[in-house]
Amino acid sequence: MAKTPVFTSEEAIAGLRQSVHAKANNFYAMYSSVFGGIVTDPAFMVLPLDDHMVHRGHAVFDTATLTHGMLYQLDPHLDRLIKSADGARIALPFAREQLRQIVLETAAASRQREGSVRYWLSAGPGGYGIGPAECVSSGFYVIVFKPEAYPDRYYRQGIKVITSQVPIKPPLFARIKSTNYLPNVLVVLEAKDRGADNGVFIDQRGMVAESAIMNVAFVTKDRVFRHPPFDAILSGITIQRVLDFAQRLVEHGVLNAVRLADIPVEEGRAAAEMMLIGSSIKVAPVVEWDGQKIGDGKPGPITKKLLEMWNEDTTSAMDQLVAVPYPD
Amino acid sequence: MAKTPVFTSEEAIAGLRQSVHAKANNFYAMYSSVFGGIVTDPAFMVLPLDDHMVHRGHAVFDTATLTHGMLYQLDPHLDRLIKSADGARIALPFAREQLRQIVLETAAASRQREGSVRYWLSAGPGGYGIGPAECVSSGFYVIVFKPEAYPDRYYRQGIKVITSQVPIKPPLFARIKSTNYLPNVLVVLEAKDRGADNGVFIDQRGMVAESAIMNVAFVTKDRVFRHPPFDAILSGITIQRVLDFAQRLVEHGVLNAVRLADIPVEEGRAAAEMMLIGSSIKVAPVVEWDGQKIGDGKPGPITKKLLEMWNEDTTSAMDQLVAVPYPD
Repeated sequence: MAKTPVFTSEEAIAGLRQSVHAKANNFYAMYSSVFGGIVTDPAFMVLPLDDHMVHRGHAVFDTATLTHGMLYQLDPHLDRLIKSADGARIALPFAREQLRQIVLETAAASRQREGSVRYWLSAGPGGYGIGPAECVSSGFYVIVFKPEAYPDRYYRQGIKVITSQVPIKPPLFARIKSTNYLPNVLVVLEAKDRGADNGVFIDQRGMVAESAIMNVAFVTKDRVFRHPPFDAILSGITIQRVLDFAQRLVEHGVLNAVRLADIPVEEGRAAAEMMLIGSSIKVAPVVEWDGQKIGDGKPGPITKKLLEMWNEDTTSAMDQLVAVPYPD
Repeated sequence: MAKTPVFTSEEAIAGLRQSVHAKANNFYAMYSSVFGGIVTDPAFMVLPLDDHMVHRGHAVFDTATLTHGMLYQLDPHLDRLIKSADGARIALPFAREQLRQIVLETAAASRQREGSVRYWLSAGPGGYGIGPAECVSSGFYVIVFKPEAYPDRYYRQGIKVITSQVPIKPPLFARIKSTNYLPNVLVVLEAKDRGADNGVFIDQRGMVAESAIMNVAFVTKDRVFRHPPFDAILSGITIQRVLDFAQRLVEHGVLNAVRLADIPVEEGRAAAEMMLIGSSIKVAPVVEWDGQKIGDGKPGPITKKLLEMWNEDTTSAMDQLVAVPYPD
């Protein structure tokens, strides 16, 4: 075997510049509290290995969608980020208003009008111990990137899911949006292995919990919109908004009711419609669960309607959209 | 608020060089598969934000102690790393032999004779999705650092622990040494809040599980060395070695038996000795648990003896020590 080269700092910089990662054309801008600024060169979208986010998963995150040059639901996403940080005992490195400004300025520096903006609060760099006492200060990182689009067939034909065998996180951890996502990763891999698109976590009591990075909702045959309560799963920002849409559909007589309560697996399987809901997937119909059809096995009308409402909301709900301060 | 600066690549490099992190004097050498070499300048001990280790916790790790210029128990630690990678579905970027060589060469480049060598296998960089399909290749990172020493009083006076209220990981995840350590971090913080040094996870059945980053063992009043089975906790490399030492003490009539079986909390509280065992803490006596004395409230003789055996082993057990190929 060849001897591993020992690099000078200049060679390390050259190595970063030449790495495959540096050639990514879908990473547009990164803010790092480590150097206190924004970079647009992917080669330097890096963070210290000693950051406790990297080696201990002591970090929380959130993502806002950049659409038509505006950030959709930035404030509820920031509120949840701060709530997650509290749960993970990460002190804010800056006041909320400054975090918000940095997110907006990083979005502006990206010059993109469509994409995703994700941001992390971390216990910060400082060493390789377990507790954050050694950390010099908590960290904040922001990335603007173009997410991989979900296939069109997800919406036209619908998604297939399986019941995951991966154990669900204990409620305390399911409610914190931390970077401890190994269970979520394994659910996706398990689903692909079994010829499905995604998996559904079922809790110890046999109740529907959530999907890998999405919430799971149903429409019953008597037109009730059903979702589990949020005590043992992540409270999705998108599902919260979709619950408002569903309420509007009740007011218009399209749905009979919205009901947040435990959903036994058998009730879910007997639903007229099933859907996955999240900021990346929006509202997508599930047509097959463990090889069994949901409803008639085709995307249902309420799911389609909710997706339409989401699409409209991201374009026109001015109270949900924050303008990005692009340079002239 | 001041506007966040947008840096050129040169300014980002300068920012990394000037960061607090760059001034660390206890990070000696880092290998990164991203640039395929070793750096000794802390400013460039970095990894891409898009690495799935960073933002999804899709990575596993292990640590070997560097002592007297040799790596103690490198091979069992590497075997466990590879087992963890299998559990986390991370493909090896290099064959085991090459991983081993890189660890040794990074230790050599550090020029240190005492310290810790930690290494991670990661799903790798490639994007911000959930699954590793987008990753260009799995990653390997190695750091040589000087860990913070545990206070002397841990060994002279003994440690205080509390029963943690943080929920334990499901067995599948407790057995994989992944970077999903938020529960472990929270246990340490909870212990400090309550005036103790560390916490003990108790499982749903009321059985002793493990500590934040250590195993927990006992000596009963009739001199039986007791440890829980390894089906729902991490199989510590150090405890495995200490179990061998305990067996030797049985052969010498110092202990009556070694027994691996569930330990109800009440049995633990009634023990003559309690100890924490791990590669960083070695073998340390616990003298108080939830404010109640263990045994006579002083470090016990078996714990001391096992620490002595560990210290001797790290100096003289040639079958457990691998020489670091330092440059001349």
